[in-house]
Amino acid sequence: MQLLSNARIATMADESGGYGEIGQGALVIEDSRISWVGPEADLPARYAGAVRQDLGGRLVTPGLIDCHTHIVFGGDRAREFEMRLEGASYEEIARAGGGILSSVNATRAADEAALLAAALPRVDHLIAEGVTTIEIKSGYGLTVADELKMLRVARLIEARRDITVRTTWLAAHALPPEYRDDRAGYIRGVVIAGMDAGHTEDLIDAVDGFCEGIAFSREEMAAIFDHAGRLGLPVKLHAEQLSDLHGAAMAAEHGAISADHLEWLGQDGVEAMAASGTVAVLLPGAFYTLRETKLPPVQALRDAGVPIALATDCNPGTSPLTSLLLTMNMGATLFRLTPSECLAGVTRHAARALGLTDRGVIAPDLRADLAIWDVRHPAELTYRIGFNPLHSRIFGGDFV
Amino acid sequence: MQLLSNARIATMADESGGYGEIGQGALVIEDSRISWVGPEADLPARYAGAVRQDLGGRLVTPGLIDCHTHIVFGGDRAREFEMRLEGASYEEIARAGGGILSSVNATRAADEAALLAAALPRVDHLIAEGVTTIEIKSGYGLTVADELKMLRVARLIEARRDITVRTTWLAAHALPPEYRDDRAGYIRGVVIAGMDAGHTEDLIDAVDGFCEGIAFSREEMAAIFDHAGRLGLPVKLHAEQLSDLHGAAMAAEHGAISADHLEWLGQDGVEAMAASGTVAVLLPGAFYTLRETKLPPVQALRDAGVPIALATDCNPGTSPLTSLLLTMNMGATLFRLTPSECLAGVTRHAARALGLTDRGVIAPDLRADLAIWDVRHPAELTYRIGFNPLHSRIFGGDFV
Ligand SMILES: [Zn+2]
Ligand SMILES: [Zn+2]
Repeated sequence: MQLLSNARIATMADESGGYGEIGQGALVIEDSRISWVGPEADLPARYAGAVRQDLGGRLVTPGLIDCHTHIVFGGDRAREFEMRLEGASYEEIARAGGGILSSVNATRAADEAALLAAALPRVDHLIAEGVTTIEIKSGYGLTVADELKMLRVARLIEARRDITVRTTWLAAHALPPEYRDDRAGYIRGVVIAGMDAGHTEDLIDAVDGFCEGIAFSREEMAAIFDHAGRLGLPVKLHAEQLSDLHGAAMAAEHGAISADHLEWLGQDGVEAMAASGTVAVLLPGAFYTLRETKLPPVQALRDAGVPIALATDCNPGTSPLTSLLLTMNMGATLFRLTPSECLAGVTRHAARALGLTDRGVIAPDLRADLAIWDVRHPAELTYRIGFNPLHSRIFGGDFV
Repeated sequence: MQLLSNARIATMADESGGYGEIGQGALVIEDSRISWVGPEADLPARYAGAVRQDLGGRLVTPGLIDCHTHIVFGGDRAREFEMRLEGASYEEIARAGGGILSSVNATRAADEAALLAAALPRVDHLIAEGVTTIEIKSGYGLTVADELKMLRVARLIEARRDITVRTTWLAAHALPPEYRDDRAGYIRGVVIAGMDAGHTEDLIDAVDGFCEGIAFSREEMAAIFDHAGRLGLPVKLHAEQLSDLHGAAMAAEHGAISADHLEWLGQDGVEAMAASGTVAVLLPGAFYTLRETKLPPVQALRDAGVPIALATDCNPGTSPLTSLLLTMNMGATLFRLTPSECLAGVTRHAARALGLTDRGVIAPDLRADLAIWDVRHPAELTYRIGFNPLHSRIFGGDFV
């Protein structure tokens, strides 16, 4: 039993928004769970004998949760980024082997050990910022074997680091060239068949897809979600990033735990998400990198009571971003979320976007995943740019 | 004598732009200087006996230089940032004690020890990214005593850390309320009188001002620069950030080492800067934070041969940014600079913006200020967002 005292605590447990702050707070941890949290003056006598650690007035928040990443991939796209800035056209970049297919080729060519070695420094950067749970998608293999390989690497990351990893089956990310003339064959032979295989191997925690003119249609995704439903797997969708295909509404009808990106989301989608309790995951890193100008409908989401999460979307093409703190700043600066909405977006609502009910908030019986910060006010986490004020991190009750 | 071998070296010494790369390079350091750099195969026999350190193919660049910061200040503005996002008007924020005056009040109230303690974690974050030289401005004191106090803290930072600090007198940052009806009195009694006092105390390496409708006019700044010239101090200017007052052209006429911000710079200013050899210091962090849309005239600057530098502009109001690597990414993503221009902007051209000729490039006889990176290609430094691949840092010949 550990007692953390003299802490400023942003519990994020306030149903009506805000930080749910406790000014002079204390927190009791037993094994991997929180037993008690509240004002220090109210500490029950039964905890008085616990080993006490004085946090010196530091801020405690739930451990951060990055609920949308493609952090496992082969190669990098730095030269492609450079060529584009030097004036190369998309065609020239494609001819030079760039674009998503370069990541697919590099991911296919890499074995599990190489993918793991490449991903760990990126994961470590998130861990250094107080992240305790991360979602990782497949989607650069595009064969059954290579997609499953990616998710095995995701599971290995959980085994090698003090972090919870949630895996997502994203074979419906792009159509590989070998299936150019056989979309149905890809969906049946890779997306569905791989989902079955991965489910059997317990590699899949959720199923996702990219619903866009350049990727998969709403009808194709609906069929994939129907199959996920038969396996009992929750679904989520990359929706309305570049155009409005009404994917979020379709996902909501399938009870999706989240719909992600959403710059082009219309009022129909907002209402469908509100009705189904689907979380809106906003990804400002991709918006920033692609220099988009169409903003997601933040006020409509607020008005409808749709929970808003924020994530890095860490990926080699459109968001080579490994800072969840910077993502919070971008959520405020670019999308005009308030700092308390940004913090809820990487804690309370990010947990919900992953279907996790045991974390994201500081409350009794939940996991003791916590971040302790050298800041005076929780707004500082969002306000500062390119600074990491993490003091320490607690994962499942242990300082690690 | 140290020999660094098996290195990929971006010397930044190529007059025609680019990285000035050496693929399989070596580098000899004697005391605090570089003695030799070139392909390992060409290493002169006289260095063969030096203590050799194999860099394992890592990238070596000049130590990074942040040539425009306001990193010494009291207080923070996180709550003001939050109030604005929660919908408060500028008036409400001013009534709540926000705006630049809140930084002035907090800076005046703090003693040297408090200002130093607040600034060091910010400086340490830059150092952790391979920064070896930083410029620090006064400008939140706005009395002779408080402005000099800020620059004394800047000198203390140099004494406490392995970093070179260049100080800049920026009393002409804002007109404090007590001089609202006596602009001439402020310029004479604080800007000029303090410059004399600071010069006597050897606290001032350059003189700067904020030339804008809300700050000081071109004529006021010209008079201040004339005085700096009489003291033999180089000048630089915050110019054309929010409107085109033709401040950069005036600064160029005074032989300014840099003109900074420059979003509204016109062709007259570009040509004047080219003629005088004035460096254009672009500050994408402020552009990002203020959600500006008017881009600096990058192509015109290139065409005219004006060197372009990049800096954090670290300050509590418009750029609470302490990452020079992120600044490089913003320079590319927001301003469309190429990755090699971004790296030149925080090395070669940043040195020139500070009037320093002994660093910013890897070449014989220059200071051995170096950064060693765990990356395969120099473009990665600009491409990645919120990631720090620094392996180690060499300051004046020592690994620190
Ligand atoms: Zn994604
Ligand atoms: Zn400035």
